[in-house]
Amino acid sequence: MRELNKVGVSQMLIVDPMSIYYLTGVRNYPGERFYALLLRRDKTPVYFLNNLFTIPLEVGAEKVWYSDTDPVMEIVAPYIDSTAPLGVDKDLKARFLLPLMELKAASAFVNTSLAVDTVRGIKDEEEQEKMREASRINDLAMAELKKLVHEGVTENEIAEKLLEIYLSLGADGFSFGPLVAFGANAADPHHGPDNTVLKEGDVVLFDVGCIKNGYCSDMTRSFYYKTVTDEHRVIYESVRKANEAAISKIRPGVPLKELDLTARNLITDAGYGPNFNHRLGHFIGLSEHEFGDVSSVNETLAAPGMIFSIEPGIYVTGDTGVRIEDLVLVTEDGCEVLNHFPKDLEVLG
Amino acid sequence: MRELNKVGVSQMLIVDPMSIYYLTGVRNYPGERFYALLLRRDKTPVYFLNNLFTIPLEVGAEKVWYSDTDPVMEIVAPYIDSTAPLGVDKDLKARFLLPLMELKAASAFVNTSLAVDTVRGIKDEEEQEKMREASRINDLAMAELKKLVHEGVTENEIAEKLLEIYLSLGADGFSFGPLVAFGANAADPHHGPDNTVLKEGDVVLFDVGCIKNGYCSDMTRSFYYKTVTDEHRVIYESVRKANEAAISKIRPGVPLKELDLTARNLITDAGYGPNFNHRLGHFIGLSEHEFGDVSSVNETLAAPGMIFSIEPGIYVTGDTGVRIEDLVLVTEDGCEVLNHFPKDLEVLG
Repeated sequence: MRELNKVGVSQMLIVDPMSIYYLTGVRNYPGERFYALLLRRDKTPVYFLNNLFTIPLEVGAEKVWYSDTDPVMEIVAPYIDSTAPLGVDKDLKARFLLPLMELKAASAFVNTSLAVDTVRGIKDEEEQEKMREASRINDLAMAELKKLVHEGVTENEIAEKLLEIYLSLGADGFSFGPLVAFGANAADPHHGPDNTVLKEGDVVLFDVGCIKNGYCSDMTRSFYYKTVTDEHRVIYESVRKANEAAISKIRPGVPLKELDLTARNLITDAGYGPNFNHRLGHFIGLSEHEFGDVSSVNETLAAPGMIFSIEPGIYVTGDTGVRIEDLVLVTEDGCEVLNHFPKDLEVLG
Repeated sequence: MRELNKVGVSQMLIVDPMSIYYLTGVRNYPGERFYALLLRRDKTPVYFLNNLFTIPLEVGAEKVWYSDTDPVMEIVAPYIDSTAPLGVDKDLKARFLLPLMELKAASAFVNTSLAVDTVRGIKDEEEQEKMREASRINDLAMAELKKLVHEGVTENEIAEKLLEIYLSLGADGFSFGPLVAFGANAADPHHGPDNTVLKEGDVVLFDVGCIKNGYCSDMTRSFYYKTVTDEHRVIYESVRKANEAAISKIRPGVPLKELDLTARNLITDAGYGPNFNHRLGHFIGLSEHEFGDVSSVNETLAAPGMIFSIEPGIYVTGDTGVRIEDLVLVTEDGCEVLNHFPKDLEVLG
C-alpha cells in the first residue's frame, strides 16, 4: 500500500499467485480460474476464491467465494471503488480486465505491478537464506550432472535423471524445465533436451535450477567433451571474462544497465557482439523469472537485497553456444555470488 | 477468420501459445515475453517474435522480430487497424493490453477468443487419433500405479515414479502434475501428493495424465486399500453411477448442462449433493484444460468431435473423496469413451 500511495492509487487487484503468496503466505495454483487479492487503502483486503481452492482459515483478508458457474467479475466489481482508478496486476488477463471495464468497476485501469514487484525485488534475510540453500543444492546437482556425461549419452537421458538428483539432494522440484544442449544445439539459448547423441568436440551446456522452500535457483555451466578447438576456447574465455567482469562491478548504486554493458563490451571486443543476443540477467526469487532485468536499457540502480542472474553467452548457429550463469545477491558493499561451482574451462571424458 | 467474421471483427491478436501452435504448427514457449499472431481480414497474418525464439523459416505469416530492450507494443500497434475493433485473446495480459489501449491501437477491444476456441473444441480425425493414443497410455499407466500401492508407501513415493512410467510407455511427459491422495486428503479435489503414509481403509485416488504427440490425457480412478466401509461403498457407487449415467446421455445435440445435471441429480438423490462441489467436466486437447466445460450453466450443445472429461466426485471433509473421470469423444450417434480402465470398486492389498 505504501508503494501504491506513492503513485496515487488507492486500490489494486493482484492476481500473480506468487505475489499473493508473498503478501498472504498462502500458496494456491488457480489454473485458469480467477484468483485475486484486492488491496484497498484503509480497508481490509478482499480475497477472491473459487470454492474448489483450499485456503487456511486466517489470512488477514475478507474472503469472497465464488463457484465455477458464477459470473465472477460481477461478484468482484462491487468491492472496487468505481470513483477511483484501479491498479491492476500486469498479469491480469483480458477475460477478466475487459468485463471490469465494461462494468465500469473503476474510473481508470492502470498497471501498478511495480508496487508489488519493487518490494518483491528486495529479498529480506530469510529469503536470502532460502536462495542460498537452493543454489547450494544446485551446485551439488551440477557436479552430479557432470558425472552423467559419457560416450553415446543423449540430452534426454541426462535431463531425465535430474529430478531424482534434486530430490535426493533435498530440493522440492525443478524451478524450470532443465536445458541440456550438446554441440550446435547450444546455439539456441532456449534449446530443450532431445535425443541428440553426444559426440567428441561438443559443448555440453546445462542450464538448470531447483526449488527449495519456495525459492528458486538457476545456474548455467558449459563444458566441452573430449576435445576443444582453439576458437571454442576463445569463445568460452570471452564468456567467462564477461561473467566475472560484470560480477566485479556489482555494488549498491550501480545502474543495472552498466552491468549488461560491461559484459557486452567485452564480448563485442572479442568479436562476438551480435552473438550475445539476450539481456545479461533477470531477477529471481519465488519465481524463476521475476520482474526486473539486467539489460542495456534498465536504469534501475542495484540495491542491497536484490538477487538476479548474470548470464552472458555467445551463440554461433550451426556450431556451438556457451553461457555461464550465476545468481548474485547485492550486499552493502558489493555482492555475494550464490553459486560456487567452478567456471574454469573443463574438458570432460 | 470465418468465426471472427461472424462476430463482425476483422482483426484478432492471439497470444495463447497453444492456439498459435494450432494455427501455425509452430510450438514455442514464450515465458513472460510477448508472443502473438495477428490475424487480419484479407491480409497476411503478422507473427510477433522475440529474437530469442527459434521459429521455422516458413510459417505463412509475416514475421516481426523484437528484442528484450524494445518497447514492444509500440512495434505491434502500427500493424493493427486503429479504425476497427481489435479482437483480443482472453489470455492477453494487462501489461500488453493497457499499452495498446493507451496507444489507441484499435477503435475497441473485444475478447474474441471464442472464435479460436470454438474451432479448437472440435477435434479432427488426426487429433482424435492422438487423443486415443494418449488415453491408451494413460490406461496402462494406471495399471502400473495400482501395483505401487502397498503398506507404508507415501503419496510422494508413488507420484515420483509416474514420469518414468509414462516415458517407458512412450509418452512425452505429464499433461499436468499428478494428483495422488490417500484417505481424507482426497476430500480436497486438488490435493497434491505429500508424505502422507497409506493406511488400511484409505481411499487411493489417482488423477493423472500424460502428453503424447502434443495431445493430453486425463483420467481419475479411486481405489480402496485393504478394507472399505459400507458408507464408502455407497459413495463410490454413487459416483460411478453418476459417471456412467452422464456418459450414456452423450450424443450430438444434447446441451452440456444436461450431462452435468444428470450426474448431479443422481449424487443429490444419494444425499451427497453439496459434496459434489465442482463442474462435471472440462474440454481437453492440446492443453489439459481447454476452453469449454460441462457445467450446470453451459447451454452449448454437444457436437461430433468434441472431447471433454466426465468427472463426478463426492468429497467428505476429514474422511474421504472419490472421483471417477473419463475422457469422451462425441461421435455422430453417441460417444466413444477414450479410457478403458475398469470402474468397478476395487479393494487393493
